[in-house]
Amino acid sequence: MFYIIGLGLGDPEDITVKGLNIIKQCERVYLESYTSVLCCGQEKLEEFYGRKLILADREMVEQRADDILEGAESVSVAFLVVGDPFGATTHTDLMLRAKEKGIKTSIVHNASIMNAVGCCGLQLYHFGETVSIPYWDDSWKPDSFYDKIVANLKHGLHTLCLLDIKVKEPTLESLMKKKREYMPPRFMSVSEAADQLLQIVAKKSDAEAGVQPDQQNEHGLSENTLIVGLARVGHDTQQILACSLSEMRNVDLGPPLHSLIIPNGQLHPLEMEFLQQFAELKQQIL
Amino acid sequence: MFYIIGLGLGDPEDITVKGLNIIKQCERVYLESYTSVLCCGQEKLEEFYGRKLILADREMVEQRADDILEGAESVSVAFLVVGDPFGATTHTDLMLRAKEKGIKTSIVHNASIMNAVGCCGLQLYHFGETVSIPYWDDSWKPDSFYDKIVANLKHGLHTLCLLDIKVKEPTLESLMKKKREYMPPRFMSVSEAADQLLQIVAKKSDAEAGVQPDQQNEHGLSENTLIVGLARVGHDTQQILACSLSEMRNVDLGPPLHSLIIPNGQLHPLEMEFLQQFAELKQQIL
Repeated sequence: MFYIIGLGLGDPEDITVKGLNIIKQCERVYLESYTSVLCCGQEKLEEFYGRKLILADREMVEQRADDILEGAESVSVAFLVVGDPFGATTHTDLMLRAKEKGIKTSIVHNASIMNAVGCCGLQLYHFGETVSIPYWDDSWKPDSFYDKIVANLKHGLHTLCLLDIKVKEPTLESLMKKKREYMPPRFMSVSEAADQLLQIVAKKSDAEAGVQPDQQNEHGLSENTLIVGLARVGHDTQQILACSLSEMRNVDLGPPLHSLIIPNGQLHPLEMEFLQQFAELKQQIL
Repeated sequence: MFYIIGLGLGDPEDITVKGLNIIKQCERVYLESYTSVLCCGQEKLEEFYGRKLILADREMVEQRADDILEGAESVSVAFLVVGDPFGATTHTDLMLRAKEKGIKTSIVHNASIMNAVGCCGLQLYHFGETVSIPYWDDSWKPDSFYDKIVANLKHGLHTLCLLDIKVKEPTLESLMKKKREYMPPRFMSVSEAADQLLQIVAKKSDAEAGVQPDQQNEHGLSENTLIVGLARVGHDTQQILACSLSEMRNVDLGPPLHSLIIPNGQLHPLEMEFLQQFAELKQQIL
């Protein structure tokens, strides 16, 4: 049997009892390490489970999936994923490969950022399409996520923005060499995301003569749009902050992972009341 | 401390280790019993936790919240919720009431249908707004959810349809009497939901002369639209079926809970490949 087990939001105790029992009786246990990140670290997990884990980076999962699945027709193999098993396309692919080989599969679900964002009080069924905000570099500044945010606003929907994660990315120079060298891991912060959004707002304002960045054009964003920053959701050190887009640029919510929400313009009174408690913290954090 | 703890998808072992440890040291533990439903039953949970639970129905939560929160400034009280704590507005309200009373609150997240639907292979970030399909009666046939499905399709997004649950609803007659009497619980099945959708499609076809129910008008649904039915997600008896809207009307996926997905019209090849395994079962189930 091949198990894909969600670890939830990242404390070792966030695993379900079902998941923990399976891990204890598996022959091999892999820990996926590149689509999300473990706040607690591999050692703490190994200590909690009382066993060794095999780290599975992108190269292993995408190029050596056969190794991971080896023998799973007859022995139990587990593949651990931060959040829920179906958060990333790669894991769907792994399930299909297992089925092709006639290996039985089983899923153990858990919380993921996709449902845990409800902790800020915005109702999950008022969310539209989720977007990803990628790191920009000098030559590559994609902004198609902005149009999706605007489409959600137009329909009165909140947008969850997942912020980029770069883990074990080979350096450009090392791609030419025999020995791969890797860049240090990077996790986009809410202030970096806000900065990129503000650059897009400024560009759109330039394009539409007469619209200043502090004026919201219909359904678009402006410097004054209320947004919500979330850090380390589900952890003891969780932080949530509701402030304007331009204020968010100057905020430090601490260590990863961060997410951003663009709420719709017509908050339900209960959503508004719940958000207010996170707006009051603003002065302490800025 | 007042804890709101998600139970996940309903097996006793779906609780997280963190959640289980908290339950064991709480003074009182409530089990919310009306926004979702426990597949395993209260007794099985009590046996697994080794303690008694207090059943909290709608009347208790909405009218006697003070009783639930009583003493939580000094002792630990837990409130258990099927799925994730933030799935329903009521629980957000309970958090606010606790804060008003100066009671500290803590959340233990878990899987909910909102992220577990990924199990059918449709990518979570291709979902638009979630809709709820309510039970119709003779005089009340709301269909505003249909327009939301169409809006999602227009933007190339899947729609998760949550199906109605009626638990402990007072009978109309008993509302006049002193003693409340309750209707038997009802859980909308995928076939009931498909039937209501087909009635809407027929009505729209009548309204737009010349469009037959088996012809899809732009972005609308037709009898032939591919839809996905899910039953008991996350359980050993989970069933997923991909078939046409009109076929779904004649399907029996067994006991609750059921959910329905309307996939967008442009499936990603990996989504298509994954869905195919659930279409092959069609002959066995129909």
